[in-house]
Amino acid sequence: MARSRTERFVTGRLDGGSVRREPDTLIVEEPLSIRLDDVLVATTMRTPGHDFELAAGFCHAEGWLDGAAIRRIRYCGEGPPVESEFNVVSVETDGKGPPPAPRLGITSSACGICGSEAVERLAETLAPLPEAERFEPATLAELPDRMRDLQDLFDATGAVHAAGAADRSGKPLLVREDIGRHNAVDKVVGRLLLDGALPATSLCLYVSGRASFEMAQKAWAAGFSALVAVSAPSALAVQTARSAGLQLGGFARDGTVRIYAD
Amino acid sequence: MARSRTERFVTGRLDGGSVRREPDTLIVEEPLSIRLDDVLVATTMRTPGHDFELAAGFCHAEGWLDGAAIRRIRYCGEGPPVESEFNVVSVETDGKGPPPAPRLGITSSACGICGSEAVERLAETLAPLPEAERFEPATLAELPDRMRDLQDLFDATGAVHAAGAADRSGKPLLVREDIGRHNAVDKVVGRLLLDGALPATSLCLYVSGRASFEMAQKAWAAGFSALVAVSAPSALAVQTARSAGLQLGGFARDGTVRIYAD
Repeated sequence: MARSRTERFVTGRLDGGSVRREPDTLIVEEPLSIRLDDVLVATTMRTPGHDFELAAGFCHAEGWLDGAAIRRIRYCGEGPPVESEFNVVSVETDGKGPPPAPRLGITSSACGICGSEAVERLAETLAPLPEAERFEPATLAELPDRMRDLQDLFDATGAVHAAGAADRSGKPLLVREDIGRHNAVDKVVGRLLLDGALPATSLCLYVSGRASFEMAQKAWAAGFSALVAVSAPSALAVQTARSAGLQLGGFARDGTVRIYAD
Repeated sequence: MARSRTERFVTGRLDGGSVRREPDTLIVEEPLSIRLDDVLVATTMRTPGHDFELAAGFCHAEGWLDGAAIRRIRYCGEGPPVESEFNVVSVETDGKGPPPAPRLGITSSACGICGSEAVERLAETLAPLPEAERFEPATLAELPDRMRDLQDLFDATGAVHAAGAADRSGKPLLVREDIGRHNAVDKVVGRLLLDGALPATSLCLYVSGRASFEMAQKAWAAGFSALVAVSAPSALAVQTARSAGLQLGGFARDGTVRIYAD
């Protein structure tokens, strides 16, 4: 079932001194619960669509699939109402995966530590990225415009984050949009995972917003060789990228880019 | 101890065909663990500063302080390194609070439900907001410019979210900035809570980004009569605002605003 990802509302718009009634198209936001081998591991607010990719990518980013193959992904609503049947996704592995206890997730692993220690802990779990040819800065600078052409939901709503994967020539291979910026990245990683295309050694991960620590973590875990953001990285994202050997670009806009890790 | 909230990095900037070395100021992102009556309830990535407000506001938004007074808030590092002592905050109540089990948080309460049900569950916990005089749309439209003058970290880094509270005349009462948009709101709510100024009946909550479900939820829980966002609301945020009796403005920019709930 293709669920609607936008919804029309009647709104009022301030125009000069008066408020005029106008329709507006808004992005849909619905809860998605993710189960891994019958254990509820997360509930996230997301824009419906590519839910299986989101569930797979999320479990991968958290480090829960280490060594396990995904056997099946399915919706698993329990009875009526029908609407919410599509808000629970179950990821089933071949049973070789570790139990779904958070490993990379900051929530569990970072209690009372500082940012540098969080990066060190990542480095204990994730190997440094293999040396790869760098993306040309000019290629990274062009990525937002090339991705932008594929961001249909943004065109409709102006309120949605995008993530994408591009090859070394800057050609976008896939784009995903979601009200949650982490979700958009998980959907991209999930697609690549389901296609057997991880680690994404020769690819660049694109994000339409900022590059926070978690974005750098997700890029590292998926094996991308570069991460480029339209907005700024955080200081910790730069530290993380430098530890990982991940090329990091930020403020990719207006035909230019700033390189924070190379 | 005033901890640094920005950090300087040497970066490369694509300029014409070549990459020129340039310094850049980035926003600091560090983990903060929040303990409530000695139980670890959350770890979040945040920009240091106003940590007590963040911890108080977060516990309030989650519904954990219902009926309990905050007796003390303190840092509680356990030994070296000194740096990370400031990454654990303990909120101590007078012991009358409920145990810190998630109540309003979407993670726990929304498994397998749809968005409308999530709103209904909020309505079971939170009373409708009292009828209050509405904010003039022109006042809401001006808020971003008035708040913008107080967003110092944004000026320095271009990479930080802001939240603020304003009175009915549009006068900003406080502004908080953080790499996490939820954190910025929690800091505002926490300040008001610690000042004994909740519910924020005659105030408007301002957010520099989008208005998602969780933003509407936090505004409702704190008793604001209006919420205005510089970017778009989600469909579910509009539904939530309409259920709450919360005035909701979006796309507040360029001297205009769109009213989604009134």
